[in-house]
Amino acid sequence: MQTMFRYNWLIREKWYQWCEGVPLEELLRKRTGGVGGILHTLFHIVDVEWSWIRVLQGKTDFQESFEAYQSLEKVRQLDRAFQPEVREFISSWNIEKENRILYNPQPDGSIATDAWGEVIRHMIAHEIHHIGQLSIWAREIGKEPVSANLIGKGLNHTLPNS
Amino acid sequence: MQTMFRYNWLIREKWYQWCEGVPLEELLRKRTGGVGGILHTLFHIVDVEWSWIRVLQGKTDFQESFEAYQSLEKVRQLDRAFQPEVREFISSWNIEKENRILYNPQPDGSIATDAWGEVIRHMIAHEIHHIGQLSIWAREIGKEPVSANLIGKGLNHTLPNS
Repeated sequence: MQTMFRYNWLIREKWYQWCEGVPLEELLRKRTGGVGGILHTLFHIVDVEWSWIRVLQGKTDFQESFEAYQSLEKVRQLDRAFQPEVREFISSWNIEKENRILYNPQPDGSIATDAWGEVIRHMIAHEIHHIGQLSIWAREIGKEPVSANLIGKGLNHTLPNS
Repeated sequence: MQTMFRYNWLIREKWYQWCEGVPLEELLRKRTGGVGGILHTLFHIVDVEWSWIRVLQGKTDFQESFEAYQSLEKVRQLDRAFQPEVREFISSWNIEKENRILYNPQPDGSIATDAWGEVIRHMIAHEIHHIGQLSIWAREIGKEPVSANLIGKGLNHTLPNS
């Protein structure tokens, strides 16, 4: 589970570096599908990851709009601001937390009950899914996307050498 | 880990159902990015999942080309043929297998060493990434994609009710 988070953080950083070689207007351009743009997707990933971590802890989550984060540096700053809390939460994960229940109010007034383990896996899948979308848009603007390979990056901390 | 596989299998089945409402020419149309098309992506997901399972077991993997699987039904049939072995392998997963080493010959003649746990997580990320690509192409042809949500689907088998 933690391997998957390390994977997501590494790939996200590589996408930030990829963005450095792309004009801002391409990063901001409205596109079909997903949340509608490259930088907006990275903002959304950062937003959603942190918001879930906050919700699990019973804290207020992030409610700001992408309108205030219209540059690569602003999104990276936001990410840097959120990362310590996210990494602390993930690094302290243990089996006991798997089955804790989140009581999650829904827009229709009902209360969903989600296991924390399910929330954590939802977060993992959420980011990979959106990164897949970036890979299509990268090709549409004629650039090679960041490789999505997880293997061979030494991410599995159960290995003796990582 | 098994939750993530159940998630991928469920979402893949939903994409097959989604494909039923799309003309074959759209499923086969060449597109920018990924492996270049909707049905080809589903074929690739099935191919790669099974191939890794075979490689981990030291068995021959799948070498056929998409050219022979140019219909939704043919891809689903292939998936159905592979699924029993994949599900058996994943359901028998245990902690002891995490650190087993796969010696994986590379095109350059070197031998990569990958922990099985890393291979398994690579397989999970691989499918989610490609499904993210489908979601963009779905919007490009004016159709709502399958939801990528993992949460709220009762996939977490550690819950008492699932």
